[in-house]
Amino acid sequence: MITVQGGCMKFGILYNTDYYPEAHGTAAKYYEDILTQVELEDALGFDAAWFGEHHYSGYSFGSPPVIAMAAAARTKRIRLGTGVSLIPLNHPIRLAEEYAMLDVLSGGRLEYGIGRGFLKYSHQVFGVSEDENHARYHEGTDIIVKAWTSNGPFSYDGKFWRLKDYTFFPKPLQQPFPPIYASAVLTPESAIWAGKHGFHLSCALFVPQQARVKTVIEHYRQSLRENGFRPEEKEISGVFQMYCAPTQEQAVREGVQYAQNYFKFFGALDARAAHDSQDFEHHGRGISRAFAAQP
Amino acid sequence: MITVQGGCMKFGILYNTDYYPEAHGTAAKYYEDILTQVELEDALGFDAAWFGEHHYSGYSFGSPPVIAMAAAARTKRIRLGTGVSLIPLNHPIRLAEEYAMLDVLSGGRLEYGIGRGFLKYSHQVFGVSEDENHARYHEGTDIIVKAWTSNGPFSYDGKFWRLKDYTFFPKPLQQPFPPIYASAVLTPESAIWAGKHGFHLSCALFVPQQARVKTVIEHYRQSLRENGFRPEEKEISGVFQMYCAPTQEQAVREGVQYAQNYFKFFGALDARAAHDSQDFEHHGRGISRAFAAQP
Repeated sequence: MITVQGGCMKFGILYNTDYYPEAHGTAAKYYEDILTQVELEDALGFDAAWFGEHHYSGYSFGSPPVIAMAAAARTKRIRLGTGVSLIPLNHPIRLAEEYAMLDVLSGGRLEYGIGRGFLKYSHQVFGVSEDENHARYHEGTDIIVKAWTSNGPFSYDGKFWRLKDYTFFPKPLQQPFPPIYASAVLTPESAIWAGKHGFHLSCALFVPQQARVKTVIEHYRQSLRENGFRPEEKEISGVFQMYCAPTQEQAVREGVQYAQNYFKFFGALDARAAHDSQDFEHHGRGISRAFAAQP
Repeated sequence: MITVQGGCMKFGILYNTDYYPEAHGTAAKYYEDILTQVELEDALGFDAAWFGEHHYSGYSFGSPPVIAMAAAARTKRIRLGTGVSLIPLNHPIRLAEEYAMLDVLSGGRLEYGIGRGFLKYSHQVFGVSEDENHARYHEGTDIIVKAWTSNGPFSYDGKFWRLKDYTFFPKPLQQPFPPIYASAVLTPESAIWAGKHGFHLSCALFVPQQARVKTVIEHYRQSLRENGFRPEEKEISGVFQMYCAPTQEQAVREGVQYAQNYFKFFGALDARAAHDSQDFEHHGRGISRAFAAQP
């Protein structure tokens, strides 16, 4: 994952993993390999390690804060991010609490990447209607920021969550709150919303429709300006696949199979529970259809 | 916290903390002090450190697995427990995932204490009806055990949660699953349910009605026997307050104020949202009323 702000580029690794027991061994070995790698990244000066959240059979992590805490305890300076934390599928107070704890316990190293979650299957598991996805994302993020920044008790009367005189603990170490990276890949509304709130942007550079991604970034910057923020003060992070080998020819030959594996896995997840919500249609059919034309 | 099995007694510390900034300092210092203490407990041979879950202003931890992961990373052998994980207020798959990850990442050191949660206020925050508390506890635990033990996809058609061909990852390191301590203090139904499932028992020895606690333990053992389990193979853990000082007189004089602080805090939490559910009346008005007659 690369992060760009005002011409300065940062490098990190996003663990948005798909697990294969025959390749990765046991869960214990798999996690240990990841943590050993993060220790090396810490020593080599990588800017951040990011952990994805999904709730399906070794696709990313069911609990990013637990693996991020394990990584934080074994490293000194590398920042720990989420790529992304699924706001609509979790109670926002639960998220505010666990990520604030992670920020405190990691010495203020949290980069909080947030997103809506694109798999209908996950919505089914968590009993959340897809048609509420955008609204829950916006309300949930609002509550998290309020929990992190309120001094003393606060109340919130939302459509999905209600709080009365709620006193939050602990305050995150980073003030006023940890950097938030809002995800927007192909949905202009998400980029406009990110800009409106002055969040940083996370996008995926590996989707086939790169022109659409470019448009989304333009929407984001425009929205920042319209809402009194300076685009050059905000970061844009982008995910793409990387594979290293002694020669470029070897890297392409070997690496392409892993990229294809991921796209196939991705496609299969989407196929097992196809989107059919009005919200999904309204918002341009989302990222999961971006690969519809891929082999 | 002490744990008894077949005449052998184990000692641990339960961090079911109430936080006072003037005494504990910043959240970062507070957590660091706890973790330093757990490191010492690890070196001294304590059996376990347990972390409570509550969602209110420094009362226990919003996320026990995050603090337990921090403790696991800094220790070698001490076991890490929850006292307790609130099943009805969380999605059971989320709990199954994060605690399985903790078990794997800690080298199989999880002691999974579970409970219903006794504060109406927490139910309000999480939008869960108190009248569903027992039923959610039973169904949630059932799903967690199923997630931890199923080989391959499984389905679950419950009243609160539904899963279709769900494939869980990662399997906990401890097989067939980490020890489960089901909480029962004053509610015989909870003890009978714990015995029926062959779980270990967690109870509180500090409640004023000690005769009722004794009855609950008898119910538990009877239930174990009736369901084909051997009580002598099951552990019973009990919580009580401890305060060390050079002399007993000094310990009582100084320690009593902290115990009273806790009871007052406890009472205030209950008072801010009084129970009124049928379930609560049916189940003997719960632990929170145990202190009603206390100063």
